[in-house]
Amino acid sequence: MLAFSDGVFAIAVTLLVLEIQPPHDFGNLVRGLGALWPSYLAYTLSFLLIGQVWVNHHVMFDRARHVDRGVLFLNTLLLMVIAFLPFSTSLLADALRADQGLRASVVVYGGTLWTAAALFNIVWAHLRRAKLLDASLGPVGARAIGRRFRLALVWIGSGILVGAFVPIAGVAIIAAFLPAYYLPIRGEYGENDTTAG
Amino acid sequence: MLAFSDGVFAIAVTLLVLEIQPPHDFGNLVRGLGALWPSYLAYTLSFLLIGQVWVNHHVMFDRARHVDRGVLFLNTLLLMVIAFLPFSTSLLADALRADQGLRASVVVYGGTLWTAAALFNIVWAHLRRAKLLDASLGPVGARAIGRRFRLALVWIGSGILVGAFVPIAGVAIIAAFLPAYYLPIRGEYGENDTTAG
Amino acid sequence: MLAFSDGVFAIAVTLLVLEIQPPHDFGNLVRGLGALWPSYLAYTLSFLLIGQVWVNHHVMFDRARHVDRGVLFLNTLLLMVIAFLPFSTSLLADALRADQGLRASVVVYGGTLWTAAALFNIVWAHLRRAKLLDASLGPVGARAIGRRFRLALVWIGSGILVGAFVPIAGVAIIAAFLPAYYLPIRGEYGENDTTAG
Amino acid sequence: MLAFSDGVFAIAVTLLVLEIQPPHDFGNLVRGLGALWPSYLAYTLSFLLIGQVWVNHHVMFDRARHVDRGVLFLNTLLLMVIAFLPFSTSLLADALRADQGLRASVVVYGGTLWTAAALFNIVWAHLRRAKLLDASLGPVGARAIGRRFRLALVWIGSGILVGAFVPIAGVAIIAAFLPAYYLPIRGEYGENDTTAG
Repeated sequence: MLAFSDGVFAIAVTLLVLEIQPPHDFGNLVRGLGALWPSYLAYTLSFLLIGQVWVNHHVMFDRARHVDRGVLFLNTLLLMVIAFLPFSTSLLADALRADQGLRASVVVYGGTLWTAAALFNIVWAHLRRAKLLDASLGPVGARAIGRRFRLALVWIGSGILVGAFVPIAGVAIIAAFLPAYYLPIRGEYGENDTTAG
Repeated sequence: MLAFSDGVFAIAVTLLVLEIQPPHDFGNLVRGLGALWPSYLAYTLSFLLIGQVWVNHHVMFDRARHVDRGVLFLNTLLLMVIAFLPFSTSLLADALRADQGLRASVVVYGGTLWTAAALFNIVWAHLRRAKLLDASLGPVGARAIGRRFRLALVWIGSGILVGAFVPIAGVAIIAAFLPAYYLPIRGEYGENDTTAG
Repeated sequence: MLAFSDGVFAIAVTLLVLEIQPPHDFGNLVRGLGALWPSYLAYTLSFLLIGQVWVNHHVMFDRARHVDRGVLFLNTLLLMVIAFLPFSTSLLADALRADQGLRASVVVYGGTLWTAAALFNIVWAHLRRAKLLDASLGPVGARAIGRRFRLALVWIGSGILVGAFVPIAGVAIIAAFLPAYYLPIRGEYGENDTTAG
Repeated sequence: MLAFSDGVFAIAVTLLVLEIQPPHDFGNLVRGLGALWPSYLAYTLSFLLIGQVWVNHHVMFDRARHVDRGVLFLNTLLLMVIAFLPFSTSLLADALRADQGLRASVVVYGGTLWTAAALFNIVWAHLRRAKLLDASLGPVGARAIGRRFRLALVWIGSGILVGAFVPIAGVAIIAAFLPAYYLPIRGEYGENDTTAG
């Protein structure tokens, strides 16, 4: 399952570049390249966010002893949402460039991420309830990871809410999620863990 | 062979999003996004169906001790049909949006899936006849898996037949196949198996 | 190196479908779908040929104990030619549909395949000369594999030559290469080998 | 992490072909195919350069015992830059064909590569500083690899500088980097290493 999931993450992330079309007017290329800034911004944001989701996908499944059909199905839903991100990314970039439809596109973009975060939380709850987690991950570690997954839900949700009124501020909140999420989780590698990852 | 097959499944599923083009009129983005519902529907349906085919591909090949050149060739045909699904999906979404050519596109869409199901049955029959299945899978398990593969043929076939007259009903029948197929197969993990998957 | 190569094969094969665009006139969809026959033909031919190249890539590298930088570089060239096939395939399909430029496109299509076959022969000669082959593969097996690789060169070469004058006959010769090449190679698994693959 | 990275490299390299569109005028196909020479050139250059970056990515990470979150983040940045290359490649090809905007596109193309090289140097410095390298790689080997990574920075940097004035010369300098970089690194496999790779 991980090989398939890794494949989807890797492809989704690499397809992002197809949404950026080179300018047509090569007589004024520097200006044309500059006007593409919304595409560069959306590309960078989505690439780093999918990269982060990928890291957290491993944080989650490296701690599962076993997956049942429920997990398999939920994971397919999660991948379906991730694979949709190139569309949301393209939408956000186009809206920024057109300077129109920004609210709707920030809501769609944030909504795609929020749905992915919700599915993370559902998978994690299922893994805990069905006792599929590795025993070496004590309850402290399991709670720490669960806390982080809930944080994602609240953080992205706030970004959507703010973005529905002030689109750029919503994008900024979602972007601010990136540095926070690369920090290690205490207890993540088990109760006695002291290594860095 | 599995790494190559997994790659094709993962790519086919991720390419589906490229068929959904953001609306052009950003002044009326919410309406434009709403009008894309056939694309979201077709995306979701195809993603989950390919995900299911992927699961069943593992159900099948995890039970093979060995593959011969016949299996290798049949598997290539199967992947060829799966990799064609982004086209059929795009066709279905476009026909739903145009509200024209629905019968033909449901038949093509269902026909692609039916061909994949037929190839599954042929590969399975070949694995059984050529005694390439793992001994731990007793005849009861082998028959249970075979029954499921035949069911797919009949189910999708009914969807095509109905869809040739009432296209939407045909799509509904094919979609109804999804929940049925995520259920576990009795005996699938060998005669004495009691685990869930 | 094999994971990277398998990835390129799987992606090249799956990208082929992107070259097939659904018809625009949904009021006359059956005719429109019928007019796409050159695309289906080119898709099928290229998918099966790349599938075959993939099988032979494993036949070759499963027998290498070790790869040096020369092999690494030649393999990159080989992948570069394989990854170019979606272009050649699209060209062939477009020429068949336009019923123009057929000679040039058959020569380009066959030329892409011929270059891949030539690189196979060069890699194989290098592996033999640099003594990088597994000892279990005796000289009889090594010669049998080498013979098959040389056969590819002659067969595809004939297809190009004929195709430069009678394009359809050239495509037929290249297509006829497929069944021949799925046959097992005697001695391929070592001198005392009796298994089927 | 390596499976994900390999996936991104394999996909980026295979997507390059999507930027080459078959000519529209099939009545004059040979001329049309000839006019695409900038696309073939850019395709070849980028394919071989990404292939080389992939080899060096393995040279680097095969010598790491362990990766921390800093490495994970830097590696994501590196992949983000590599996955951007299909855009830069398309830009370079279009500028060569239009015979306009060449300076800007050579600077963007070289700049993408230079940023990748800079990230290699940063990852390598981090691996050395955080003592994440395998002990079998002595200081001589570590310095040899570091020297090569610094050389890339200077070489590509020179290509950009020259290319900002004489675009074609800049492309030639970047291309000349390819043969130099396929040479083995002394001490790369540890102090007592005598094997070729």
